[in-house]
Amino acid sequence: MSASFTIALDAMGGDNAPAIVVKGADFARRRFPGVRFRMFGDQAIIRPLMKRRKRLREITEIVHTEDVISNEMTVSVALRKGRQSSMQLAINSVRDGEAAGVVSAGNTGALMAIAKLTLRTLPGIDRPAIAAIFPTIRGESVMLDLGANVECDAENLVQFAIMGDVFARTVLGTVDPTCGLLNVGSEEMKGHAEIQQASATLREMGDAFSFHGFVEGDDIAAGTTDIIVSDGFTGNIALKTTEGTARLIKEFLGDAFRSSLSSRLGYIFARRGLRKMRDRIDPRRYNGAVFIGLTGIAVKSHGGTDAFGFANAIGVAVDMAANGFNDKITEGLEAFGRFKPGPVEAAAS
Amino acid sequence: MSASFTIALDAMGGDNAPAIVVKGADFARRRFPGVRFRMFGDQAIIRPLMKRRKRLREITEIVHTEDVISNEMTVSVALRKGRQSSMQLAINSVRDGEAAGVVSAGNTGALMAIAKLTLRTLPGIDRPAIAAIFPTIRGESVMLDLGANVECDAENLVQFAIMGDVFARTVLGTVDPTCGLLNVGSEEMKGHAEIQQASATLREMGDAFSFHGFVEGDDIAAGTTDIIVSDGFTGNIALKTTEGTARLIKEFLGDAFRSSLSSRLGYIFARRGLRKMRDRIDPRRYNGAVFIGLTGIAVKSHGGTDAFGFANAIGVAVDMAANGFNDKITEGLEAFGRFKPGPVEAAAS
Repeated sequence: MSASFTIALDAMGGDNAPAIVVKGADFARRRFPGVRFRMFGDQAIIRPLMKRRKRLREITEIVHTEDVISNEMTVSVALRKGRQSSMQLAINSVRDGEAAGVVSAGNTGALMAIAKLTLRTLPGIDRPAIAAIFPTIRGESVMLDLGANVECDAENLVQFAIMGDVFARTVLGTVDPTCGLLNVGSEEMKGHAEIQQASATLREMGDAFSFHGFVEGDDIAAGTTDIIVSDGFTGNIALKTTEGTARLIKEFLGDAFRSSLSSRLGYIFARRGLRKMRDRIDPRRYNGAVFIGLTGIAVKSHGGTDAFGFANAIGVAVDMAANGFNDKITEGLEAFGRFKPGPVEAAAS
Repeated sequence: MSASFTIALDAMGGDNAPAIVVKGADFARRRFPGVRFRMFGDQAIIRPLMKRRKRLREITEIVHTEDVISNEMTVSVALRKGRQSSMQLAINSVRDGEAAGVVSAGNTGALMAIAKLTLRTLPGIDRPAIAAIFPTIRGESVMLDLGANVECDAENLVQFAIMGDVFARTVLGTVDPTCGLLNVGSEEMKGHAEIQQASATLREMGDAFSFHGFVEGDDIAAGTTDIIVSDGFTGNIALKTTEGTARLIKEFLGDAFRSSLSSRLGYIFARRGLRKMRDRIDPRRYNGAVFIGLTGIAVKSHGGTDAFGFANAIGVAVDMAANGFNDKITEGLEAFGRFKPGPVEAAAS
C-alpha cells in the first residue's frame, strides 16, 4: 500500500509516552510507506527521542503543546482544562482536515468525550461505538460496542451492526461477514426488548446483510460470526473477562511448567511452539480500539502498550483511512435503508 | 461429615442420563456417608444400572416416572406436559420435605421455571438467582446471577449480594468474604442507575458486609473479590465468555504442542504438570449451578457432564443442605435489615 495521508499522534498519552509513541511511529513508518505524522506534544522531550530517527523526522511534523490530559483527570476536568492539550489538539487536526485520523494511548474517557464533541457523529449515526478485533478459533472477529454506551436501544444496536459490517470488510478484509447479536441464548425469545427488536430489524434487512441471529458469550472466541454486536456494558465486560481468563490460564500454565524438573524440561522443548501461541493471543497484536461512527477516525491504544503495540494501533488508523472507512459507513447506512429512504441495494450473499 | 438427609435426583435429565446420574450418585455416596437418594426416573432403565451397585441400592429409593422433559421442550410445554415428569416429581419431593435438595442435569429453562413455581422464593427474596463457583488466581469465587434474571433492579442486586455472602461462607467456607458489583469501571459514577443504587445500598450496610465496590470483567478471574454480583444477562455472558476463552486457549495450546517434534517431546515431559493445570480449570470440578433464593435447594448440573461432574453437583447440594444454607439466607436478610426492620448485627470485619 502506498497510502499518502497524515495520522495525528497524541505523543503525551500512555504510560510510557512519548517514548513508545515515537518508537511506535518509527515501526509504523516502515510498514506503511507514504504515511506522514503530526505529533502533538512537548517538543523538548520529543526532539531528543527523534535524534537518531532521521527517516521518521522527515515525515513527522512536531506540533508543540504544553498541556497534558493525565489518566487521573475526570472527563469534565479534561474537557475544561484540556483545550490546549496534546490530545485535544491532535483531535482538532482531524476535524480540520489536516490529518486523516488520530491515535492516542491516553485517558480513555477523555479521548472518547473529546473525540465525540470535536468530531461529532456521522450523519445517520446516533452514537459512536468502540470496536476492536478479537482472536478466535476461526481467525479474527470484530466486536462492538466495548464501552462507549452503557445503555443502547434497538436502533443503536442496528447501527453498530452496520458499522461492524463495514469494519469487517474494510479492516479485516472479510468477504460477506456474518453478524451475531450477543445474548443469553440463541432462541428467538431470549433477552430483553431492545435486543429482540434489533434482531427483528436486522432480519428484515434481507440477504445483503448476513445476520446470523443471537450468539452467546462462548461464540466470541469460537468465531461463530465475524461481527459481534452488543451494548457497551455487556461488551466491555466480555472484553475484560476474556483478558482476565487469559491471564488466569497464563498463570496456571506457568505454574504447570514450574511444577517439576520434567515440566521445566518440557517447557524448553516446547518453547518455540509456545511462543507462536503467545503471539497468536498477544494483546499487542490486537491493540487499537476504534471509536467508530464519528466524522473522523480515532483510535485508542492501550495505555500500557509498548512501541510494537502502538504501531499496531497506528496500523488500524491507517487501514481505516486508506479504505475510506467513514464513506463506507455512509454507503452502508444508505444501502440498508437506515439513512434516507433510498433503494435497497441487492448484493450477492 | 456424617450428614443424614435425602437428595432427590432427576435421573432422566442430561445427555447421558440416567447412566451418569446413577454412577455419579455412587461416587457421591462414597464422599458423603449418610446421604440418601430418591431417584426419579424410568425404573426399567435404572434398575439394570444399579445391579452391581449394592451399596447405592441400599441408600436409594427409586421412584418410577414415565414422563421426561427433553432439552428441546420450551418452558411452556415443559410446564404443561411435565407434571408427571422425573424433573417435576423430584422437585415436588423437596417441596414436600421428603428431600433436602434436588439435582438435575436436564433442561435448564424448565428446571428454573418449575423450581421457581414449585418451591417459591424465600421470604424477603424477590427473585431467585443462579450462582456458581469460579476458579481464580487467588482460589475460588462465587458469581451470581448467571442467567435467571435478564433484567434486575437495585434491590435484586442487593439481595443477590447477601445470598452470595451466605454462599461464600457456607459452600466455600470463606471467612468474611468480600463482594464486588460487576461494572464497566471502578469509579463511583460508572454504570447504569440500578448498579449505582445497589452500590450505595451495599455501602450503607456497614462493616458487617465487606463491600469492595465495583469490579470489572478481569477481576472475576483475578479473584479480586470472593463474591461477584451481576444481573443475569451480564453474568451469563461473562460465564460463557470465560468458557469460550478457555476453549480457544486450549485449542491454541494443542496447536503449539503439535507444531514440531520438539514441541511434541516438550509436551511429553511437561504432561504431568499440564494435567494438574487442566484439573485446576476442569469444568467438571465447577459443575453445579445453584438456584438460590428458593425455599428448597435446587442444583443444575451441566447437561453434558459425566459421572464425576454429576457427583460434584450432588456435592454442592449436600454442602448447602448440611450447612443450613436457606436458614442462613433468612438470617442474612435480617442481619442486614433487608427483611424486617430488626437491629443490624455488628460483626467483626
